Amino acid sequence: MVSAETRLQEQIAFIVEIDRLKSIYRQSFLMDVSRKEDDAEHSWHIATMAVLLGEYANDRDLDLFRAVKMLLIHDIVEIDAGDVLAYDKEFDMGLDARERIAADRLFSILPPDQSSELRGLWEEFEVRKTPEAKFAMAMDRLQPVLQNYYTQGKSWKEHGITAGQVLRVNARIKEGSEELWEFVQEIIRDSVEKGYLLP
Amino acid sequence: MVSAETRLQEQIAFIVEIDRLKSIYRQSFLMDVSRKEDDAEHSWHIATMAVLLGEYANDRDLDLFRAVKMLLIHDIVEIDAGDVLAYDKEFDMGLDARERIAADRLFSILPPDQSSELRGLWEEFEVRKTPEAKFAMAMDRLQPVLQNYYTQGKSWKEHGITAGQVLRVNARIKEGSEELWEFVQEIIRDSVEKGYLLP
Repeated sequence: MVSAETRLQEQIAFIVEIDRLKSIYRQSFLMDVSRKEDDAEHSWHIATMAVLLGEYANDRDLDLFRAVKMLLIHDIVEIDAGDVLAYDKEFDMGLDARERIAADRLFSILPPDQSSELRGLWEEFEVRKTPEAKFAMAMDRLQPVLQNYYTQGKSWKEHGITAGQVLRVNARIKEGSEELWEFVQEIIRDSVEKGYLLP
Repeated sequence: MVSAETRLQEQIAFIVEIDRLKSIYRQSFLMDVSRKEDDAEHSWHIATMAVLLGEYANDRDLDLFRAVKMLLIHDIVEIDAGDVLAYDKEFDMGLDARERIAADRLFSILPPDQSSELRGLWEEFEVRKTPEAKFAMAMDRLQPVLQNYYTQGKSWKEHGITAGQVLRVNARIKEGSEELWEFVQEIIRDSVEKGYLLP
C-alpha cells in the first residue's frame, strides 16, 4: 500500500517535472515584443481568460473549473513532444504519437487516481467533444490571435501566414463560442487591412 | 448603457494589459537554474499545484476553484507595484499602498461586475481569513521553497537567507495546510543539513 508520504512525494515529483514547461518557447511574442512567450505563460494567460470570458461560451451551463483545469495542463505534453506552430500541425504526421507517449510518461508520475484524472482531462481537451473542451480550445486559439494582433502581426509576418490560414485554423473557436468567433473574424479583417496578415 | 461589444472590449483590454505579468521577474530560479522565473509562470505553477494538492487543505470543503481564481490573479498588482522578495516585505512600508493603487487602476479596466469580483478575490487573498485564501497562500509560499530546494538553495544563497527567516516567513502555510507545513519543515531541516540554507 502506498503511504500518504509516498503519495505526496509523487505529487511533488510531478510539480517539479512540469517546471520545464517554463522553457518551452512558442511562436507568439509578448505584447511588448521583447521576446517569444513560453508555454507556462500562455497557460496562465488562457486559464485567466477562461475565468473572464466564460459568459461567451455557447453552453452557458458548462463547468468552468473543468475548462480551467484543462487549460492549466493542456500543454504539459510539449515538455517531451515540443511546441509545433498551429499552421504546421496538419503536416506533422508524428505529432499525435509523440504527444501520446509524452502523456504516458508525464501523467504516470502522479498517484494513479490523479494520473487518470489529468490524463482524462488532456484527452477530453484533445477530442473537443464536451462543452468544456470546446470552450477551452476557443481560449487556446483566441490568445495567439490577440498576441499577434497587438504586436502588429509580428509572428504571422515571420511565418508568412495568410488570412485564409488564420480563418481555417481558428474556425474551431466557433464550436466553443459563436460570439468570440465573430470577434476573431473582425480582428482578421482588420489585420489584413492594416497589413499584419497577407490577404 | 454599455453595449455588449463595449463589455467585450473592456475584457480584452484587461487581457492585453495583464500580458505584462510575463515581464515581472521574481527572485526564484527555474529548476534548471537557466534564469529567474516570472510572475505569469509562477501563477500558472501555483494554480496547477492547487488543483493537485487540494486534498491537503485543512478545510477539505473549501471551494477549490475560488482558490485557483485567486492564484491566477493574485500577483497582477505587481505589474505596477513590482515584485518584492518575501523576506524584504516586512521592511517595505510603502508596499501596501503601492499595491492598493495598482489594484485600483488594473481591476477598473474590467466591466464593473468583474472589476469588483476580481478586486474582491484579491482583497480576500491578501487578508487570509477564508479557507480558500489560506490554502491559496500556502501554495504561493510552498512554490518558492520548492524552487529553492530543487536548485540547491540558489536564491536563498544569493540573498544570504537563514533557516529562521524561511521558517518565519512560511509559517503561514500552516493556516492553509498542517500537512504541507510539516513537509516544508522537513525541507528546511534538510536544506540546512545540505548547506542550501544558513542555520
